[in-house]
Amino acid sequence: MKKIRLGILGFGNVGQGVLALLEKNQDEWKSKTGRDVCVTMIAKRNWSGIEKPANIECVTDSQSIVTCKDIDVVLELIGGTDIAFDLVMAALENGKHVVTANKALIADRGVEIFKKAAEKGLEVSFEASVAGGIPIIKSLKEGLISNEIQSVAGIINGTSNYILTAMRDEGRDFADVLCEAQSLGYAEADPTFDVEGVDAAHKLTILASIAFGIELDFDKLSVEGISSITQQDISYAEQLGYRIKHLGMALRRDNGIEVRVHPTLVPSKALISQVDGVMNAVRIFGNGVGETLFYGAGAGSLPTASSVMADVLGLANSLFANHVSPLGYDRDNENSLSVLPVGSQISANYLRMTVANKPDVIARITRILADKQISIETILQKESQTPNRVTVVIVTRMISESSLQSAIDEIKQLRALSGDIMRIRVENFS
Amino acid sequence: MKKIRLGILGFGNVGQGVLALLEKNQDEWKSKTGRDVCVTMIAKRNWSGIEKPANIECVTDSQSIVTCKDIDVVLELIGGTDIAFDLVMAALENGKHVVTANKALIADRGVEIFKKAAEKGLEVSFEASVAGGIPIIKSLKEGLISNEIQSVAGIINGTSNYILTAMRDEGRDFADVLCEAQSLGYAEADPTFDVEGVDAAHKLTILASIAFGIELDFDKLSVEGISSITQQDISYAEQLGYRIKHLGMALRRDNGIEVRVHPTLVPSKALISQVDGVMNAVRIFGNGVGETLFYGAGAGSLPTASSVMADVLGLANSLFANHVSPLGYDRDNENSLSVLPVGSQISANYLRMTVANKPDVIARITRILADKQISIETILQKESQTPNRVTVVIVTRMISESSLQSAIDEIKQLRALSGDIMRIRVENFS
Repeated sequence: MKKIRLGILGFGNVGQGVLALLEKNQDEWKSKTGRDVCVTMIAKRNWSGIEKPANIECVTDSQSIVTCKDIDVVLELIGGTDIAFDLVMAALENGKHVVTANKALIADRGVEIFKKAAEKGLEVSFEASVAGGIPIIKSLKEGLISNEIQSVAGIINGTSNYILTAMRDEGRDFADVLCEAQSLGYAEADPTFDVEGVDAAHKLTILASIAFGIELDFDKLSVEGISSITQQDISYAEQLGYRIKHLGMALRRDNGIEVRVHPTLVPSKALISQVDGVMNAVRIFGNGVGETLFYGAGAGSLPTASSVMADVLGLANSLFANHVSPLGYDRDNENSLSVLPVGSQISANYLRMTVANKPDVIARITRILADKQISIETILQKESQTPNRVTVVIVTRMISESSLQSAIDEIKQLRALSGDIMRIRVENFS
Repeated sequence: MKKIRLGILGFGNVGQGVLALLEKNQDEWKSKTGRDVCVTMIAKRNWSGIEKPANIECVTDSQSIVTCKDIDVVLELIGGTDIAFDLVMAALENGKHVVTANKALIADRGVEIFKKAAEKGLEVSFEASVAGGIPIIKSLKEGLISNEIQSVAGIINGTSNYILTAMRDEGRDFADVLCEAQSLGYAEADPTFDVEGVDAAHKLTILASIAFGIELDFDKLSVEGISSITQQDISYAEQLGYRIKHLGMALRRDNGIEVRVHPTLVPSKALISQVDGVMNAVRIFGNGVGETLFYGAGAGSLPTASSVMADVLGLANSLFANHVSPLGYDRDNENSLSVLPVGSQISANYLRMTVANKPDVIARITRILADKQISIETILQKESQTPNRVTVVIVTRMISESSLQSAIDEIKQLRALSGDIMRIRVENFS
C-alpha cells in the first residue's frame, strides 16, 4: 500500500492529538483512502521533558522538515504568524502540500500563502483553523456551495462561551469565572485574545471570506469582547427572552457585508442559545437551504486533530486516489463489522403499564425484571383514570432486547395487568 | 466559459427548486466553479397544467435524456425504485454522471448502481437523499473522515418530528395532528412511509453504511414508527426529564453495529431535543471529534435543490476544474462585495443605563432616540441599588451604528445619567 508521509512542525496539544488519532484509526484510514498514513518527522524547538514518539525522527530544526524529500504533506501546528509563515512558504517552495490549524496565519497572511500555493500547484488546507472539530469550512465551501450565503453567526471562541455560560448558570462575575477558566486550562494566562474577541475575529475573517468571496482582511472587522458584561445584563436579557452569546457575525446587506464580533442578545429559544460551555456552533443561512447549524468541540487535542487529519485524508483522496467509493470506504477493504440482530441490541427503556392497585403488584413486576438482570433507574406510580388501577412507569438501565422482551412477556402473564405494555427506548447519549 | 449541462428526470417539487436556485445563483456558481451550469432537457411524463420553462427542451420521454450526447450529468428526481433504477443504470451506461435525491433507490439498489458507476468511471452523488439541505453525507464521509464513528442518531423524518412537536406543544393526539399535517402538506395522503419509520429507515441505511463501512442493507434494520405514542407518554417523559423524538440510530458495539429506527426518550437538555417542527438534525459521535450535531431543513423544494446542486457543483470542481481556490471562489471572478464600515452596520440593540428617578427622564431619552429615527421595541424600568436612581433598559429595533452612537452621545450629555451606558447588540435571526 502506498504511503502518505507527514512532517509535523510543532508538537504541542494538537500534534500529540494527531499521533493519538493515528494510533487509534490508522487501519480505518487505510480502508477509507487506500493509503498508509505515516508521520516521518516531527520538529520541536525543545524536546526536554517530552517523550519522543517511537519510530519517528524527532528534530529541533524545522528547516529539515520543509526541505525533506521523504515528506508529502507538512502539518503546521506551531501557531503565530512569523516563524509559521516562513516555514509554510518554505514548505510550498519545496513542493509540499500544507495543512494548518493556524487561524491567525490564514487570516493575516492567507493571501500570500494561497498565491504561492497556486503558483506551485499545491494545496493548503486549514479546516482546523475555525471551530476545531466542526467541519465548518468544508460545509460552507462545499456542502452549501450552491447557496448564496445570507449570514454566518458563530460561537467560535470556546473560552468566551464557557465564561458566559458559567456567569449565567452560576450567577458569578466575569473576573471570577475567568480565573476559574484559567485554572482549568480553558483560558490562557493572558486571556486577551479569547475574551476580547481577537481569536474569534481571526476565525470570522476566514469564514466571511469563504461565505461571501471577499478578500481575507482582518483589519476591516469591528471587534468587541465580553469583559464588560455584567450579571445585571444577563438577568435583564433573560427577562426579555434572550441569552447573551459572544458571536462572530458576517451579514450580507444590500450595499455590502457587515463583519463583526461582539456579545449579542439572541432569543433564548434559538438553537444557538442552547450551545453552552466550551462548545462551538456556527449558524449559516443560505438562500437555498435556509437555516442550518453546525455544532461540536471548538478546541482540544483530539477534536482539532480530527480536522487536521480530515484535511490530510482529503488530500490523499483527491490527489492520490483514482476513485473514492460513493460510500466513503474502499469496498475491497470493507469492514468486517456486521449488523446485529434485533435481540442483541441493547438500550435503556421506558415501560408504561396499567395494573391493579394492590400492594404486591410492583413487587412482582420488579422481581420479574430482577430475574432477567434488568436494573431499574426510576419507577413512577401514577393514578389511573380506571378505578382500582394505577399507571406504573419504569425506566430501566441498559439491557439486551431479548432479555427485555422476555421480561415483558412474563409481565403480560400477570393477572394484575390491564391492557398492553407501552415500551419506548431511552437514549441518554452518555 | 465551459458549460456543465444537466438533464433532469422528473419535474416535481425538487426539479422546480433546482431551476429556481439556478435562476437565483447562477452567477455565483460561475465564480465558484468557473463553469456555466445550464439545464439542457427536462423529462416529465405529463406536462399538462405545467408551465414549461423557457429555453429548455421539455420532453415526455426520459430515454431521450439518458442517451442525449449533450448532457454531462443526469439528475434523477423521479423517486421510487423501478423506473428510477432503470434510468440511472441507462444514464451510467451512456457515460453520464448521476445526481439523485432518491433515498429508497440508494438504500435498496445502491450496491448495483455503485458497481456500474465504478465500472464506467463515473460518479453517483446523493447528498439530497438524507436530511434534505443538511450536507450530512459530505460531513460524515469527508468532514469526519478521520474519525472512527461511534454513533449516529438523527431526526431524519420531518413529518414525524412535526407531529411529535405538535403533540407535545399543543397536547393533541397523534391522529388529530396527522390530519392537520396532511392538510398543510407536511404529510402524504398515505402517511405510512413517514410515520411508520420507513422513510427514516431508508436514510439511516445510507448513513450507517457511510459511518461504519457496512453494506447497504435495508432489511437488517429494526423499524418502529410513532403512531402508538400517546399524550400520557409525552407527559411522563417530560416529568422524567425527557422528550420523545423519532430517531434513526446506528451504534457501534463491541460485537457489531446496531441499526434501528424508533421513538426515543432523549434528555430534555440535549441539543437534539430542541430540534422541533419539520426540521432535521443528525448527531454524530466520533472518537476524535466527540459530539457533533448538524441541523437544517430535511425536505422542501429549495433545501433539497441546495443539496442536489451541491453535488453538481462538486462534480464540476472535482472532475472538470484544475484547481479550486482554498477559499472556494475563483479569485479572478472575485465578488465586488465590500466590507461595510462600522458606522453603516445595522442592528437591534440593548441599552442599559442608570438615571435619576424623575418623571421626565424617560421622556427625554425617548425623545433623543425618536429624533434619530430609532424605534423602541421594549423599555424596562427597574429599581436601582443607588437611592433616587432607576435602571432603564431599552431594546431598539434595527438602526445604523452611526445613528445609535450619536444618540448615545446625546444621552450621555443628560445630567440625569449616572455612569456609563451599556450597549449590547441584539440578533433575532428574523
